[in-house]
Amino acid sequence: MDLIIAIDYIGTLVFAISGVLAGVERKFDLFGVFILGFVTAVGGGTLRDVLIGSTPVGWMGNEVYIIIIALAVPLCYLAKNLVVKMKKGLFLFDTIGIGLFTILGLEKTLSLGLSPIIAVMMGVVSATFGGVIRDVLSGRVPLIFRKEIYAFACLAGAVVYLLSNIFLKEEIAMLISIAVVIIIRIFAIRKQWSLPFNP
Amino acid sequence: MDLIIAIDYIGTLVFAISGVLAGVERKFDLFGVFILGFVTAVGGGTLRDVLIGSTPVGWMGNEVYIIIIALAVPLCYLAKNLVVKMKKGLFLFDTIGIGLFTILGLEKTLSLGLSPIIAVMMGVVSATFGGVIRDVLSGRVPLIFRKEIYAFACLAGAVVYLLSNIFLKEEIAMLISIAVVIIIRIFAIRKQWSLPFNP
Amino acid sequence: MDLIIAIDYIGTLVFAISGVLAGVERKFDLFGVFILGFVTAVGGGTLRDVLIGSTPVGWMGNEVYIIIIALAVPLCYLAKNLVVKMKKGLFLFDTIGIGLFTILGLEKTLSLGLSPIIAVMMGVVSATFGGVIRDVLSGRVPLIFRKEIYAFACLAGAVVYLLSNIFLKEEIAMLISIAVVIIIRIFAIRKQWSLPFNP
Repeated sequence: MDLIIAIDYIGTLVFAISGVLAGVERKFDLFGVFILGFVTAVGGGTLRDVLIGSTPVGWMGNEVYIIIIALAVPLCYLAKNLVVKMKKGLFLFDTIGIGLFTILGLEKTLSLGLSPIIAVMMGVVSATFGGVIRDVLSGRVPLIFRKEIYAFACLAGAVVYLLSNIFLKEEIAMLISIAVVIIIRIFAIRKQWSLPFNP
Repeated sequence: MDLIIAIDYIGTLVFAISGVLAGVERKFDLFGVFILGFVTAVGGGTLRDVLIGSTPVGWMGNEVYIIIIALAVPLCYLAKNLVVKMKKGLFLFDTIGIGLFTILGLEKTLSLGLSPIIAVMMGVVSATFGGVIRDVLSGRVPLIFRKEIYAFACLAGAVVYLLSNIFLKEEIAMLISIAVVIIIRIFAIRKQWSLPFNP
Repeated sequence: MDLIIAIDYIGTLVFAISGVLAGVERKFDLFGVFILGFVTAVGGGTLRDVLIGSTPVGWMGNEVYIIIIALAVPLCYLAKNLVVKMKKGLFLFDTIGIGLFTILGLEKTLSLGLSPIIAVMMGVVSATFGGVIRDVLSGRVPLIFRKEIYAFACLAGAVVYLLSNIFLKEEIAMLISIAVVIIIRIFAIRKQWSLPFNP
């Protein structure tokens, strides 16, 4: 579907921008900034593909991803102020993006004949581990391990998709589950939800 | 053999507990704590499978591993004091676990037709790299690179297994080599052995 | 060609020495020092092989690599002063090595039917990500993301190889592109070139 492709590409761009900005903040050079944008955008899906054995990894089959990520670098250079101003808009696309990446990762895993539990896990990995690799490469403890209910939103979306897919058409199930991701994430940030764990 | 399966599962639980406790110490949230338990328990075998090309990686074919690791989280929550008190017992199971993981990793590598040297290396990787990934994800320099004779014990166990397997039955070779791992590790800690390297 | 094999082996040794010295500096023990030498020497090619799906990864098929890397440890121990004195010579071999690793990584990727853009990227990954993994494992932000025009030299060499290979014999194209890598890197260090990126 054209809408899915559009969201996929926009989500990739927004993820890449987040990586590029993290690299700029850490005073990386051009190579470092590009690599950080790259791993943030496709790192989660790459890890999923390596683990489930779907190689060459996904982005190697479609150069549009590389072009989009390469565009994020001059975009952050030329329009840094605009990018910073658009933070709210970016946040929305980021959230739609993680919803979609979760479902696409889940579907790809199921299509290889792996079990629903593994598919849910790989959906969450697809959406979240780009940021984990970004943080490890920039010498930080992964943000997602500490705060944000980001991963839980993906998990909820994945489970809702699996269940609603039994009764509803795939497109409807996808819309519902992406909505679940968006709603949980927005509520979480509004209410400063978190999942502390201190026995 | 049922005994091997039992040791494998107990070893997985003990590894997962060590990861969960490391996550708690770093004040990770529920997601971070689970991920840290997960990579500690299956990270070494996952890296081995990816390197030798045995994908989907091992734990994707048996959901018992995921259930065991998921159990480690509430276990550490509900019974933290008990877990800490049982440290000595956990240490023993941990050591039996690394012995078994070394041999199983070695066997899996040989079964793919790779050479004995590669098999020994992959045995050691299976037993030790879960902890390396745990440390990298929690922003620490891997403990195993600095202290503990842990990796050397695995290496010795792997070589003893390869050699004794020529003359003895597989079960006997396995018992002997796990005993070697246990003895070296206990001695090493008693005598504070280490392998310094300062040219 | 024998010359290529010789450069490959010498490059591997020089990369391994750089990893071993980094481990010594960080006060790692024997195991840590060996692992750091190992990942520095073969980490880039290993990551490439995993991403393009060429597993078991390359070094598992030829034990000469393991022997060379294992030799780097006593070499740094017995002849540390010599190694430090030979720094300039090592730098030259290191630079020839990254040039060759770039071209070999590019060729391997093309041979699997992947596109020239992916092949160029995998060439650069082959030559540079050993150092990235070394830095991550020793708790440092990857040097290559901050300074040095190292990665750009590999990129230029890879593109020159792809283009010159259309018109010239493979051996000539290889020589020219390795020369490009060497020249850019030496100039870069002389002139303190860098690729800053601060929008």
